Amino acid sequence: MKICIGVIGGVQAAAENLSIAEEVGREIAKTGGTLVCGGRGGVMEAACRGAKAESGLTVGILPGDSRTEANDYVDIPIVTGMGIGRNIMVVRSSQSIIAIDGSYGTLSEISYALQLGIPVIGLQTWEVSEKIHRVESAKEAVRMAFELAS
Amino acid sequence: MKICIGVIGGVQAAAENLSIAEEVGREIAKTGGTLVCGGRGGVMEAACRGAKAESGLTVGILPGDSRTEANDYVDIPIVTGMGIGRNIMVVRSSQSIIAIDGSYGTLSEISYALQLGIPVIGLQTWEVSEKIHRVESAKEAVRMAFELAS
Amino acid sequence: MKICIGVIGGVQAAAENLSIAEEVGREIAKTGGTLVCGGRGGVMEAACRGAKAESGLTVGILPGDSRTEANDYVDIPIVTGMGIGRNIMVVRSSQSIIAIDGSYGTLSEISYALQLGIPVIGLQTWEVSEKIHRVESAKEAVRMAFELAS
Amino acid sequence: MKICIGVIGGVQAAAENLSIAEEVGREIAKTGGTLVCGGRGGVMEAACRGAKAESGLTVGILPGDSRTEANDYVDIPIVTGMGIGRNIMVVRSSQSIIAIDGSYGTLSEISYALQLGIPVIGLQTWEVSEKIHRVESAKEAVRMAFELAS
Repeated sequence: MKICIGVIGGVQAAAENLSIAEEVGREIAKTGGTLVCGGRGGVMEAACRGAKAESGLTVGILPGDSRTEANDYVDIPIVTGMGIGRNIMVVRSSQSIIAIDGSYGTLSEISYALQLGIPVIGLQTWEVSEKIHRVESAKEAVRMAFELAS
Repeated sequence: MKICIGVIGGVQAAAENLSIAEEVGREIAKTGGTLVCGGRGGVMEAACRGAKAESGLTVGILPGDSRTEANDYVDIPIVTGMGIGRNIMVVRSSQSIIAIDGSYGTLSEISYALQLGIPVIGLQTWEVSEKIHRVESAKEAVRMAFELAS
Repeated sequence: MKICIGVIGGVQAAAENLSIAEEVGREIAKTGGTLVCGGRGGVMEAACRGAKAESGLTVGILPGDSRTEANDYVDIPIVTGMGIGRNIMVVRSSQSIIAIDGSYGTLSEISYALQLGIPVIGLQTWEVSEKIHRVESAKEAVRMAFELAS
Repeated sequence: MKICIGVIGGVQAAAENLSIAEEVGREIAKTGGTLVCGGRGGVMEAACRGAKAESGLTVGILPGDSRTEANDYVDIPIVTGMGIGRNIMVVRSSQSIIAIDGSYGTLSEISYALQLGIPVIGLQTWEVSEKIHRVESAKEAVRMAFELAS
């Protein structure tokens, strides 16, 4: 079974955070992990692009009814048809989660992860709990994500 | 169609907040609303008990596989079998939401409501957005919930 | 807690079967049950209309994102945002199910009910199992639905 | 993006059908497809075992709360926590589906696929529609599954 690391964050994100997301994706792939995300644009797309640059494997758990809504760097689209209700599955399918930037959708995922006891590593994101492991760099985030993966 | 007001909050809550939840339930029923909640204990049960004391109607959108897990004051159990993934449906099925106390599950519901533009009225709960309408009493919360119901 | 009887069947149905559905709705209401259905048109709407004609209570577990898609006779819209994935919840929330006519969506619900051991009473519907209780009239269907409700 | 072929069928199956499932898995992998299934035992496990024997990639969309419930040949466990409600996602995530043997759970998946217009190829399975492409061998099933993948 693959080690599955989640990357969450919004469709809208500052250029700097997209750049961090891309590096996170690259590092996950280089470390041998499979990247799990919501499959759409912004942070999700940047992370997938990074993973594919290092020949990693990417899974996009999509909200809509069609695989065509996946970003160009998703290998395996999971088509839920559940809208943002799919967030719970992004969380449950990840052994640890790196949160980058993000708005309310990301906050719902962080909340679910905290409730389920799935480790959350935070980069420029919501500060709602001391249980979120705050880090300063993509490399540090990925290192910790693998360390804490449960 | 009934006016459906959501009440969210955790299974664990301070006695004072349970008392507020019960009054919220009573006020919703007295104002003619149907109470929608997650159907379990704590804030949910207190609110349902309040609503039934005023002969209101209560809906519990349950996480598990059986209607028997509903609290004693739920009239209509919706059995989702989706675990905490059912939170999105508590939110979507509410025209406005009163959040009382609550932990990470409640935070996931607040996040969803903010993302979907469903009004959230907050009583002793998470302070993650200025969009949450903060009030001081059960009566004020219910008045505002009906006013903002969309 | 209310006794919840499910009525399933397609958006498209022969006039004769819509008429049966309406009578089923009336009988459920007269017997004191709450009608649970998918909340849309055709068999679902006819059954809800019948139930409301007898001042019954109706629940529509909707596929889409908005309560406005409910038919005019739904009291309580449950907004799932899950598309036809909501079928499992129509089934789980029913203590017994009356299937009338119906196409593949109805067949998915019958399948789920048979898998979960929820009694299915069939009127002019799919013949895929001997476990489906075949009856000839709306009255007989409703009588059996209450008898078998679990 | 990978070509995703679904394999559905029950946890219980005749030895002969498990053998067919394993060959189906092998052929999917040899043809370069990713195998999508419900991730549990029986037909699902046999198909995954076949795919791994040919170094294919396997996805298991699991009903429960934990990746540990996946069979030993699943590479990527998608943890839904939705119970059998996850069937809709097995279907939606497949570009075509091969149904082998199977009971009511399989029937719910066939129903969903027929409703959504996703091609179904049938081997020793339910005969509920002329739209199911009946074939006699694993090789023929896989050839048709790739041909019809949409």
